[in-house]
Amino acid sequence: MTHPTDTGIEGHGSVPGGVQGFGSGDGAASATRITPGNALRPEDIALDVQRGTARPSEDVAEYALRLGDDALILAQRLGHWISRAPELEEDVALGNIALDQLGHARSFLTYAGAAWGKTEDDLAYFRREPEFRSAHLFEQPNGDFAVTIARQFIVSYYQFELYRRLAGSADATLAAIAAKAVKEVDYHRDHSAQWVLRLAQGTEESRRRMIAGLKLVWPYVEELFEDDELTARLGDAAVVPSSLRPDFDRLTSEVLAEAELEVPQVPGAPGGGRRGRHSEHLGYLLAEMQVLAREHPGATW
Amino acid sequence: MTHPTDTGIEGHGSVPGGVQGFGSGDGAASATRITPGNALRPEDIALDVQRGTARPSEDVAEYALRLGDDALILAQRLGHWISRAPELEEDVALGNIALDQLGHARSFLTYAGAAWGKTEDDLAYFRREPEFRSAHLFEQPNGDFAVTIARQFIVSYYQFELYRRLAGSADATLAAIAAKAVKEVDYHRDHSAQWVLRLAQGTEESRRRMIAGLKLVWPYVEELFEDDELTARLGDAAVVPSSLRPDFDRLTSEVLAEAELEVPQVPGAPGGGRRGRHSEHLGYLLAEMQVLAREHPGATW
Repeated sequence: MTHPTDTGIEGHGSVPGGVQGFGSGDGAASATRITPGNALRPEDIALDVQRGTARPSEDVAEYALRLGDDALILAQRLGHWISRAPELEEDVALGNIALDQLGHARSFLTYAGAAWGKTEDDLAYFRREPEFRSAHLFEQPNGDFAVTIARQFIVSYYQFELYRRLAGSADATLAAIAAKAVKEVDYHRDHSAQWVLRLAQGTEESRRRMIAGLKLVWPYVEELFEDDELTARLGDAAVVPSSLRPDFDRLTSEVLAEAELEVPQVPGAPGGGRRGRHSEHLGYLLAEMQVLAREHPGATW
Repeated sequence: MTHPTDTGIEGHGSVPGGVQGFGSGDGAASATRITPGNALRPEDIALDVQRGTARPSEDVAEYALRLGDDALILAQRLGHWISRAPELEEDVALGNIALDQLGHARSFLTYAGAAWGKTEDDLAYFRREPEFRSAHLFEQPNGDFAVTIARQFIVSYYQFELYRRLAGSADATLAAIAAKAVKEVDYHRDHSAQWVLRLAQGTEESRRRMIAGLKLVWPYVEELFEDDELTARLGDAAVVPSSLRPDFDRLTSEVLAEAELEVPQVPGAPGGGRRGRHSEHLGYLLAEMQVLAREHPGATW
């Protein structure tokens, strides 16, 4: 029997057309059997870890943890929409995005865990809130559908620029994860941009809600582009967050202009997610996410 | 821009290997451009409905409603597991199964709605509880992971036998939907059987829970195989539910025997789902599922 997730993960990420213009990272592929640009699954990374061909430094692991936590927390938020979106078609779309994010989270967390002898499940289910490294944007509540779309719009434009560059990372495993993820996130980007346009240009009510949604989540943009000592130390292995900002601003502005919306002028929220300081929202989210695994350590009773 | 769900639905249903031994239904394909066995999306059915090439009789619509409601209610139940299963890998697997079921629901409901001038969203979000036609098994709560697996085990062995035969339906649209769905359900079947074995043969605790889970949901098996006037009237367009029972019993018994489990000896629950009589569970499920669409009729505000 084929293992269920073998087909599951590979299958729904197939986007026709795909992405151009991001580095293939070929120069960094020598340390591992992972070839950047090829599809890879968390299981492949786990195998490389076992074989000793993929072993992140402490800094790389901490960096992978940040990206993995972002994706994991978002997947949990988006999963809620299955059968609850305003259209069945949209349930499926948001569900697929949730599963893409979960796939990325699994890869990043598997790789991060290799530095500390931990599995993806250890990291997802057995860390306490201050040990999570996600930015605050990702833990923001779903709100109404426009809030979810506003959050997704920021996330996908941010992740696209991040993964596009990370595909050229000096760390071959990070490069490989990013090269796969960017193709999926390119589609998330289209999806959220389409909805921003549709809601902004729909009824008065939908436009009002889209504006309110963007205003609510825009304070969390700033934290995504904050540099710190870790990203400075990592050099070519990582991406300097502030370097992504100009492209993010330019491309999101283009969509907002087409939708005849202003870029929200709101003060940035304090942030602190990368250092484990979170809003109250994350605690509730983790309680739901972790309860089953914690009631039954060892996962299968 | 490609519409998001175009890739979403097609993509994750691709199962290597696939299924043999079910009728291709070629004889019934003339009334519509849908060729049984080809992939088809709810959008294709909607298009055929618009063009007047697919138009179910009242009886066929009522039958499609039953199958669509089964899948819709199950998708809502399974979606809950995204980021909450005992393993991240399993989150992805259950999430993919939920999206498969949602895809089948969309197709069946789109087709059913054509008889009454209603869309899939009208049927999903704007019917009251007594108008739902799902069998009671599908609305049973998730319980612990073993209960979810027990429910899924019954569902997927039932749906596989049903869709396998329905792929040869005299109704070309039902045949086409079933021919696509059976390939996906074949994989759900493998998935649930693997977990039944794994839990039954794991620890004492996992075995105890698997036995308890099967005992809890087995009373709802009987309703799945009850014939009534509708299935009798439909003749070659539908599948006689009772005709599926021998294969269901044989194949589930084989798995249970391999797991060294007994077929639960429990009295059947009263049923009545096909006539709109439901347990208290469905009301809560529908409240969650329908709240957004009902607050904002017209779906996008």
